[in-house]
Amino acid sequence: MPMNPSLLDNPKSDRIRRVADLANAKARRRSGRVLVEGPQSVREAVAHVPDAVSDLYVLSESEGADTEERSPTLAAIVDRAEQCDSIYIHRASEAVMHRISPNAQGIAAVVDMGALTSEESQVAWSDTPTIAAFWQVRDPGNAGAVIRAADAAGCDAVIFVDDCVDRFNPKVVRSTAGSLFHIPVLTMGADEMLAWCSAHGIAVVAADIYGTPGNAPRTLPDMLADRVAVGQSKAVLFGNEARGLPRQLLERVDRIVTIPIYGKAESLNLATSAAVMLFSLAMSSHMGRM
Amino acid sequence: MPMNPSLLDNPKSDRIRRVADLANAKARRRSGRVLVEGPQSVREAVAHVPDAVSDLYVLSESEGADTEERSPTLAAIVDRAEQCDSIYIHRASEAVMHRISPNAQGIAAVVDMGALTSEESQVAWSDTPTIAAFWQVRDPGNAGAVIRAADAAGCDAVIFVDDCVDRFNPKVVRSTAGSLFHIPVLTMGADEMLAWCSAHGIAVVAADIYGTPGNAPRTLPDMLADRVAVGQSKAVLFGNEARGLPRQLLERVDRIVTIPIYGKAESLNLATSAAVMLFSLAMSSHMGRM
Repeated sequence: MPMNPSLLDNPKSDRIRRVADLANAKARRRSGRVLVEGPQSVREAVAHVPDAVSDLYVLSESEGADTEERSPTLAAIVDRAEQCDSIYIHRASEAVMHRISPNAQGIAAVVDMGALTSEESQVAWSDTPTIAAFWQVRDPGNAGAVIRAADAAGCDAVIFVDDCVDRFNPKVVRSTAGSLFHIPVLTMGADEMLAWCSAHGIAVVAADIYGTPGNAPRTLPDMLADRVAVGQSKAVLFGNEARGLPRQLLERVDRIVTIPIYGKAESLNLATSAAVMLFSLAMSSHMGRM
Repeated sequence: MPMNPSLLDNPKSDRIRRVADLANAKARRRSGRVLVEGPQSVREAVAHVPDAVSDLYVLSESEGADTEERSPTLAAIVDRAEQCDSIYIHRASEAVMHRISPNAQGIAAVVDMGALTSEESQVAWSDTPTIAAFWQVRDPGNAGAVIRAADAAGCDAVIFVDDCVDRFNPKVVRSTAGSLFHIPVLTMGADEMLAWCSAHGIAVVAADIYGTPGNAPRTLPDMLADRVAVGQSKAVLFGNEARGLPRQLLERVDRIVTIPIYGKAESLNLATSAAVMLFSLAMSSHMGRM
């Protein structure tokens, strides 16, 4: 829709309070809406789920809408949103944008949660699917980073297993850099995830340093050299940032794999491990051999 | 040295102000000292550069030093530090620890900058060295993450090229998770870096999406399949978080390589790119083939 020429300049208005409240999970559940902050994520929301975007708030730096000079990045997003009938576009003062989110960098959007709540039916299965599963990922920045890595590595879906951070937390959304709008992010309990993988013929590969007495981890390069392992449908399961994967879950997976540490560092963090493992598998599987 | 039994409980004392001031580059230069925060980094400092650690500050939760109950993590660091003649160990109140750094998580150390300032002579050359070089890395969290990734991938050294964030910034130190004490981190200008690589017979491989008209990037899996490229001594050069590498620098490197994006994500961030590229090369070179 064309931009509304009137300027929103009251940070204490009910409308703006309701938008800012979307930082809280309770307000998101009650309203069924999600706050998307920053140019990168908002651009991807407008491009990939335009019908789900209800309102767009753009920083206004002048009095009149006609005379406005906007950065090329923001202007391109506004242009695209103006072509979508469902999107109300609002000019907002600096105080209003700051009240909406200190991390908005000039632009924020309100998106319908229903359109983002991925169903299994939305998975566009590839020939040999790779799923990225995360058990109890808790840090919003990590959660966003792993969704982004899974998207970039061409995974078919992400599964958040058991008690993870809310995938609609604004910091998660921002950290995905738009990938939340590219790839289905499902939520399941551990039993459900294992049953789902089994029903789809997907092997579960846990990323873990220690393994179990009956199932020692093999190293990632060893797995990459194994064409059968690389070529099969798989879900790669990563553990919690601090505690890794629990023993009872490790005992129920098909394979355990670990990234070798060649230097003196003790470990890699979750986001780095996920990126290295998912990309190595993706490159290996795309190349036939590396 | 044995722990000093008296409790530091004045956050406004000169000593504590001087320690807290080490968050600022100017104070670090003037004093020649660096602040190391948090159990992971402090443990690695005490383990790897004990002679450079002058003071250790540990949170005290009770009145008497004898009756103190300390977490096993902190207790293990204190035990090790007590065996080092050069380390003064101080018990500090919560207010003092908070004044030293809100990110200390109960422990902080003051370390001599001279002992951390890496010289070329400290590089312990491997048979086919890999160097990780970063041009104008500016974000402290990124800078720490890439040093940690380079360490874990077994690189021989890190080079910060041209105008990078100070590697002794406390957030950089904390984000390395101790890797700053494991691997030499050199600083050089771009000309110097290119000359140094040339003098050591090290090919410069730039990580860049676009390349130059005369030197198109090849993909990472393509390079990994090339045994000559994987087997040679190399410095992998990464660009600035926002701007990448400048054209005039790209024109002077030996190869340009890019990580393929298989999904809809637009790009990877610097720390993820560095981890994926350095680990792929390390695994490939350690395995002979992947």
